[in-house]
Amino acid sequence: MTLDTLRQAFSGRLHTDAADMAAFLTDWRGKWTGRALAVAQPDSAADVAAVLRWCHAHRVPVVPQGGNTGLSGGATPDDTGHALVLSLARLNRVRSVDTHNNTLVVEAGVTLLQVQEAASAAGRLFPLSLAAEGSCTIGGNLATNAGGVQVLRYGNARELCLGLEVATAEGELWDGLRGLRKDNTGYDLRDLFIGSEGTLGVITAAVLKLFPVPAAQVVAFVAVPTPAAALSLLQLAQARLGAALTAFELMSDTCIALVEKHVDSARLPLAERSPWYVLLEVSDSSDEAHASAAIEGLLEAALTHDLATDAALSSSLAQFQALWALREDISESQGAEGKTIKHDIALPISRTAAFIASTSAAMEEAFPAQRLVVFGHLGDGNLHYNVSPAVGHTGPEHAAAFVAQEAAMNRLVHDAVAAHGGSISAEHGLGVLRRDEAARYKTPLELKLMRAVKTALDPLNLMNPGKLLG
Amino acid sequence: MTLDTLRQAFSGRLHTDAADMAAFLTDWRGKWTGRALAVAQPDSAADVAAVLRWCHAHRVPVVPQGGNTGLSGGATPDDTGHALVLSLARLNRVRSVDTHNNTLVVEAGVTLLQVQEAASAAGRLFPLSLAAEGSCTIGGNLATNAGGVQVLRYGNARELCLGLEVATAEGELWDGLRGLRKDNTGYDLRDLFIGSEGTLGVITAAVLKLFPVPAAQVVAFVAVPTPAAALSLLQLAQARLGAALTAFELMSDTCIALVEKHVDSARLPLAERSPWYVLLEVSDSSDEAHASAAIEGLLEAALTHDLATDAALSSSLAQFQALWALREDISESQGAEGKTIKHDIALPISRTAAFIASTSAAMEEAFPAQRLVVFGHLGDGNLHYNVSPAVGHTGPEHAAAFVAQEAAMNRLVHDAVAAHGGSISAEHGLGVLRRDEAARYKTPLELKLMRAVKTALDPLNLMNPGKLLG
Repeated sequence: MTLDTLRQAFSGRLHTDAADMAAFLTDWRGKWTGRALAVAQPDSAADVAAVLRWCHAHRVPVVPQGGNTGLSGGATPDDTGHALVLSLARLNRVRSVDTHNNTLVVEAGVTLLQVQEAASAAGRLFPLSLAAEGSCTIGGNLATNAGGVQVLRYGNARELCLGLEVATAEGELWDGLRGLRKDNTGYDLRDLFIGSEGTLGVITAAVLKLFPVPAAQVVAFVAVPTPAAALSLLQLAQARLGAALTAFELMSDTCIALVEKHVDSARLPLAERSPWYVLLEVSDSSDEAHASAAIEGLLEAALTHDLATDAALSSSLAQFQALWALREDISESQGAEGKTIKHDIALPISRTAAFIASTSAAMEEAFPAQRLVVFGHLGDGNLHYNVSPAVGHTGPEHAAAFVAQEAAMNRLVHDAVAAHGGSISAEHGLGVLRRDEAARYKTPLELKLMRAVKTALDPLNLMNPGKLLG
Repeated sequence: MTLDTLRQAFSGRLHTDAADMAAFLTDWRGKWTGRALAVAQPDSAADVAAVLRWCHAHRVPVVPQGGNTGLSGGATPDDTGHALVLSLARLNRVRSVDTHNNTLVVEAGVTLLQVQEAASAAGRLFPLSLAAEGSCTIGGNLATNAGGVQVLRYGNARELCLGLEVATAEGELWDGLRGLRKDNTGYDLRDLFIGSEGTLGVITAAVLKLFPVPAAQVVAFVAVPTPAAALSLLQLAQARLGAALTAFELMSDTCIALVEKHVDSARLPLAERSPWYVLLEVSDSSDEAHASAAIEGLLEAALTHDLATDAALSSSLAQFQALWALREDISESQGAEGKTIKHDIALPISRTAAFIASTSAAMEEAFPAQRLVVFGHLGDGNLHYNVSPAVGHTGPEHAAAFVAQEAAMNRLVHDAVAAHGGSISAEHGLGVLRRDEAARYKTPLELKLMRAVKTALDPLNLMNPGKLLG
């Protein structure tokens, strides 16, 4: 196929050399590698639509790509070489800020960090926050409905978006950039595109919700005896703090020990170890004294009721950051400890403790040569139920044997998730990694409804084919 | 057509007598009246699916109906008599409560008040609240994505729902009753059915989000000189109060004067009249003293900056209710003042003051014999931009002349809404009332996408045909 007509169809870059394309053909972890016809980097939303019109006319599949930081292989082309990779990197403008409407209009290729900075420059908060924020893009965040640490208070990417601009499979540009809190004039196309992983259309811009910057934030790092105690502490915290409770993270002692081992500055802020810890954050619209008083009152009640055994509070920005780092450095520390098998699962919050107890017992029996590395956003029922090799088995000579157990571990964990009414992808999306696994747990009717929607909006199956739906 | 096979197909009631059917064939305001083949009241979700299978097999259109309290004619059949009215009234069970997950599973026919009461009995808050709550049903609230007074803090019906059970056009039952805060395993079917006004399927049950009950609530009734000042007060309130600000309502002096005229107990709680008032509510997780201090601090700042001229605070439950009644009784008081022409519009919050200024000037010039009755949820950009006949023209002899202006008034108001980037249906839905009007302001592409979704899920166009989409 000649690419000359494509080159003339839009303004932007078109990469066809192997060296130029390489970075777009492999995900950042190097887990998936594919081939492509070319990599297009249009300059504007209209150019994205033009590229899609060309693809539609020539029946060329399209793989949209943002910051290429996904964990599920959703932005990597397959190995046929038939697809065009469509990078949104050059759609990098903050189009407008409206502080009285508390909204920001940004293009898809703006990084999450740049969105946060634009909000901050306007005296507002954009609360979506996750590890890849320096390089992931807001278009990718919306296409995968990203989560993160403050979902408890502010919701997922879905809840932070009021409107979208989307280039359709036929290459038309839908202007749904409405900055409205209420709009009941038809089907919710916005939420259909959000989380569809580029399989229904390409998000080119979005209207995002902004929030007031809290006057003060305090975190507590709390030793709790069990996940069940952590759950009771969550109930107590919600009752006492309401919307001021902006994060509630659970992590096992194994997680914290890994961070202490691999991060020089990390140290447990408590005198004694505990099997489990909670990191909870309070954001206050009054001042730090009020925040600290609220959190101290909570902890006193928790100690009295044996929900907690000890706690450390932040009383400076440095302490605030150091306590958060213990939670945020878990993933990277686990990565330094040999191969990792990840499960990004969600459960009804009420089931989390029972899930951990029964699943961990089953895992220890079925796979004795492993270590459970369990942490996550307990306030949302979202656990990163991860596995590392046992101590002494982290070297490369053990990697193959460890990874060979992945499918069996997935089956055990995901069967347990399904039995507890949970989800096998809480915030990472399906991509290719969890596509078939998700289909296994969905009813035939739900798959049929999803396929009907897919066919309606992308009848030629050109939009990121093979991702999300088989 | 013989209804014998339908009668045998499901458990529940089937009304075919004119007297039994009458109440289902007219909306509660008596604005629309239709005819029907019969009225079915199935006993369970499985029976709803059975009714839909029969309708699908016999190509019978279906008009789902909840509490029949809608304002847009979405639940009334047309006058052909071909359709079956499907009343969800007998699906009235609270299926389960999970206080640790903060969720409630209810069937579609449970009234909103019963949902609130079930939440309250479990020590939780279900924050959706609107005038018809005693008779509207949660199924209807979700089908129309209802709003109300606390959307500012808790969101619309959409944001309060985690999962759905839906009977499809073919009569299959989709179990999407997931009680999860995070679930990225495919297309967002839940949000597609929410707000679709029964045109894609019939909601039979839902998982609803519950919240902690606030420790204290205080309202302030504030005199403000202009809508622009009200907007600045909103900014200030959000910055100082954050999520504790749970309602922010605007109303003109015309509204309050109507309430004082038609409600015996109503009286302005301020020494002097003002052209505009704001009712703002603070919900506090600490105690009443903290709530009052926060609201007093805010009002002091507002008075200093000339954003407000006077204010009354509630210091008892009776005062709290009396101040709220001034806002809540506007609709009924307007109804007592002759015919009413309603516009349920949403705007970017930042545009509300400019919209009111320019549109009200244009309305007064174009339609001198009228009174603007403007109030609404300013915190959401949602105005009820209503019109009553001028004083001295409220009698029945003037009704026809007043109503004859409705289309022209709609055009003026809705053109202004479109020019300001707003929506012509904020929380009432389209039904038949706003169906063609919405199509007028949407792009051909958006209508095409909506039709593609409709055809995908209801290829025979049997689900509430003629509503929402033409």
